[in-house]
Amino acid sequence: MKKSLGPSATTFTNPAWVVGTYDAEGKPNMMLAALGGVCCLTPPCVYVGLRKATYTYGSIVQRRAFTVSMPSAAHVAEADYVGLASGRDVDKFAVTGLTPVRGDLVDAPYAAEFPLTIECELIHTIDLGLHTQFIGEVKDVKVDESILDENGGIDLALAEPFICAGGHYHLIGEAIGKTFGAGEGVAPV
Amino acid sequence: MKKSLGPSATTFTNPAWVVGTYDAEGKPNMMLAALGGVCCLTPPCVYVGLRKATYTYGSIVQRRAFTVSMPSAAHVAEADYVGLASGRDVDKFAVTGLTPVRGDLVDAPYAAEFPLTIECELIHTIDLGLHTQFIGEVKDVKVDESILDENGGIDLALAEPFICAGGHYHLIGEAIGKTFGAGEGVAPV
Repeated sequence: MKKSLGPSATTFTNPAWVVGTYDAEGKPNMMLAALGGVCCLTPPCVYVGLRKATYTYGSIVQRRAFTVSMPSAAHVAEADYVGLASGRDVDKFAVTGLTPVRGDLVDAPYAAEFPLTIECELIHTIDLGLHTQFIGEVKDVKVDESILDENGGIDLALAEPFICAGGHYHLIGEAIGKTFGAGEGVAPV
Repeated sequence: MKKSLGPSATTFTNPAWVVGTYDAEGKPNMMLAALGGVCCLTPPCVYVGLRKATYTYGSIVQRRAFTVSMPSAAHVAEADYVGLASGRDVDKFAVTGLTPVRGDLVDAPYAAEFPLTIECELIHTIDLGLHTQFIGEVKDVKVDESILDENGGIDLALAEPFICAGGHYHLIGEAIGKTFGAGEGVAPV
């Protein structure tokens, strides 16, 4: 029996992405974004949804670039902290001890310690209300060699990514089936 | 040491959402979307990214409505199947045995068996290339009472949601910290 909860953005999973930007003075900054995702595969595009009140908002508008990094479980405290503090008040790289690295292809920094980073150039800005959707075209993906398996693929057990779900960060759990495969037994396709 | 992989939409996690629509004749259809997410909290908005080639694409353009459902692990085969087959060729509700229910507030159906469904009215259509982003404003969230805890909150262990990561569907794993909490020890905020 289904119960109606009214309108809200209730889902089971959100990402825990760290968005990297330079401010007007060139100070590197980062914040946690739980609103984000892939919106196109060709050209590859991802978005983050940010409130106008964030310091990062102004930096993306000005620089037209941002990075998205996926931290490992070892850095869950730092990832959460950069969602609590504002780059207006503190240098979050200095406070966390994470190392800012300038993007190769876009005007935005990322933390060297996070195992996967996407460099994005802003291509669309969609004001939806409390959040603005910044859609970035991916210019490069950078991955730490320590999380690659022997075939050059990403090993999730090494990357130890986490997501936001129900007020907590959660590790990715057990595999329960192949995408484009688990359903082959349901009916011929 | 970071390795450059070039531009691609490489992330560790994507959703495994089932998108429900009616076609021009009113036949209920559903497909799996791995491109999707929350893009605004107020008003609550979610999006799905679909290829123009999908049958669902035309249905959303025509009906200006869709539902997003989050299946439980028990239905991983059916969720994958609806991403393999096309509603042009088959009645996916009939084939899977899932029960179509008409949305209360939008012109789109959902499967009764999935524990959480969001009813969406299309508000923005953004053509990005291979994928088009359909942004829907959430008109209602419907949740199965069987996944609610004693406080009326969603119990992830009961919901058993899964995500797409690295070619497989994965369960949500262990909690490793509180959102807006895990980082409080890093520095005063």
